[in-house]
Amino acid sequence: MASELPAEFALIARHFRPLAGPEGLDLRDDVAVLTPPPGRDLVLTADAMVGGVHFLPDDPPDLIGRKLLRVNLSDLAAKGATPIGYLMTVSAPRDTPDAWFAGFAAGLAQDQKEYGVTLFGGDTTSTSGPISLSLTILGHVAPGQAVRRTGAQPGDGIWATGTIGDGALGLAVARGRLRDPSGHLLSRYRLPQPRLGLAIAGVASAGMDVSDGLVQDLGHLCRAGGLAAELDAALVPLSPQARLAGPEWLATCLTGGDDYELLLAVPPDHDDALRQAALVAGMAVTRIGCFRSGPPRVMVRGPDGAPMELAAGGWSHF
Amino acid sequence: MASELPAEFALIARHFRPLAGPEGLDLRDDVAVLTPPPGRDLVLTADAMVGGVHFLPDDPPDLIGRKLLRVNLSDLAAKGATPIGYLMTVSAPRDTPDAWFAGFAAGLAQDQKEYGVTLFGGDTTSTSGPISLSLTILGHVAPGQAVRRTGAQPGDGIWATGTIGDGALGLAVARGRLRDPSGHLLSRYRLPQPRLGLAIAGVASAGMDVSDGLVQDLGHLCRAGGLAAELDAALVPLSPQARLAGPEWLATCLTGGDDYELLLAVPPDHDDALRQAALVAGMAVTRIGCFRSGPPRVMVRGPDGAPMELAAGGWSHF
Repeated sequence: MASELPAEFALIARHFRPLAGPEGLDLRDDVAVLTPPPGRDLVLTADAMVGGVHFLPDDPPDLIGRKLLRVNLSDLAAKGATPIGYLMTVSAPRDTPDAWFAGFAAGLAQDQKEYGVTLFGGDTTSTSGPISLSLTILGHVAPGQAVRRTGAQPGDGIWATGTIGDGALGLAVARGRLRDPSGHLLSRYRLPQPRLGLAIAGVASAGMDVSDGLVQDLGHLCRAGGLAAELDAALVPLSPQARLAGPEWLATCLTGGDDYELLLAVPPDHDDALRQAALVAGMAVTRIGCFRSGPPRVMVRGPDGAPMELAAGGWSHF
Repeated sequence: MASELPAEFALIARHFRPLAGPEGLDLRDDVAVLTPPPGRDLVLTADAMVGGVHFLPDDPPDLIGRKLLRVNLSDLAAKGATPIGYLMTVSAPRDTPDAWFAGFAAGLAQDQKEYGVTLFGGDTTSTSGPISLSLTILGHVAPGQAVRRTGAQPGDGIWATGTIGDGALGLAVARGRLRDPSGHLLSRYRLPQPRLGLAIAGVASAGMDVSDGLVQDLGHLCRAGGLAAELDAALVPLSPQARLAGPEWLATCLTGGDDYELLLAVPPDHDDALRQAALVAGMAVTRIGCFRSGPPRVMVRGPDGAPMELAAGGWSHF
């Protein structure tokens, strides 16, 4: 494809070529060429973001670019992988202002520097619909050491990084349903912090990032591992801002999405290794429950010790 | 991201899980894990296809899937790479019928078998706009042997595989502007034939696939290599069906798009090697001109020997 006449050509040269690493051949070829790190497995993941679904038309374009990159980096983080680079396709209406692309690329440039990745290649095209973005990222990990969704065992602890619920509350703030004097919740919603650098390979028996809501994503780990989970709501780490919102927002914290924290299964004899890894990475990790044998389901114990009934199971984009 | 509740979950399970290779972890994880072929370079490319731009809403969905895969396979073919697998994101309106996904996946399944690739992963999401597809494909090649756009030298021959122009004429057929009794032109437009298996590594000094029109794409090779090209229109291989359309369609053949043939620069002392490789691959290759030193431009000599003026330089999607 690589459809390029002056307009598309100039757009790529102006905004995307500066993002390219050596593998991207200056975006002058149709392909990237990568010599993979010898003796390592590659970890690959792709996510799409669509205007009106994942972001609003008037969201700052630099934040859209950074979020697109970060949700993919978060998937790598949950596998214990080190990011290498990415390919991206951008479909945008013909009347998309040049300033939008400039802002979008500036956001990507900023996070490329922060996370040590470069653009390998991609495609730009027009659309009659909303801006439609797709990003495929590559990372590497020691052979056989990628942390998978499968692998949790009965007795493994359930651990979470950082704090849970800020993203969901931030969405409530954006919708005008909650106050956020410090701006912390909104910023957590707008800009995920991928938990890269936590050395979970060989430590966690299973893992994923929390993007669709803690309870729903824990359910995925249960189904993948064929076991049940007991989650203790009182142990779930909340930010001061989330606590300030009050107990009526607890269910939102547990079932909302956009956390981009890591949800890990950790055998008890690896607790110290995880704590040590967290110390090295400068991250908080909290044990919030444990896995049990039994048919896949998530039991949530409320702050009062009684089982908690949660209406929403999580978020679906389809 | 990997947004999945029952609806999205079931959609993936029903249509896309059967396409997954072992690297795709059954599409139950957010990532794929690939052990790259040792001692090989990876070649990566991504293309987007959008409804109303690259295909029409009522195009058969299996052909859309196959075309999406094949345009990417064509990029690998032009680099001399062997395909491995792909990641894909699909954004579709919520009311997209299940039969559309079934047909789309069936087309992918058919071509996966034909070209020896599997689905590694991806994402599905909704959109308020037209169906928006993005595919990233991986291939491998001997270290340093990927055929690039840069590298053509003055005196190198310009070679093309197969026949040129059928795709552009097929589009004219689809628009009712040309008759196509045999259906050959339309099928060439709808279903590219990626020229995989032609052993061009170490044989071609530069190469790309012809997707935006022969003259425009030759211009890309000129700019990348910093040299001029002389193209002899009388030598450009046309199918019997294209010849039947008559000389008034010659310019369309030279400047239209959707050929997905390979355009190669080949040093004269590699002619025999290229012919031998073509014989092995069962493909036609034709010398259609040569590169000259000079500022980047494409000179086209018409069938009468006089310079040919071409109105359209090619196709842009933006």
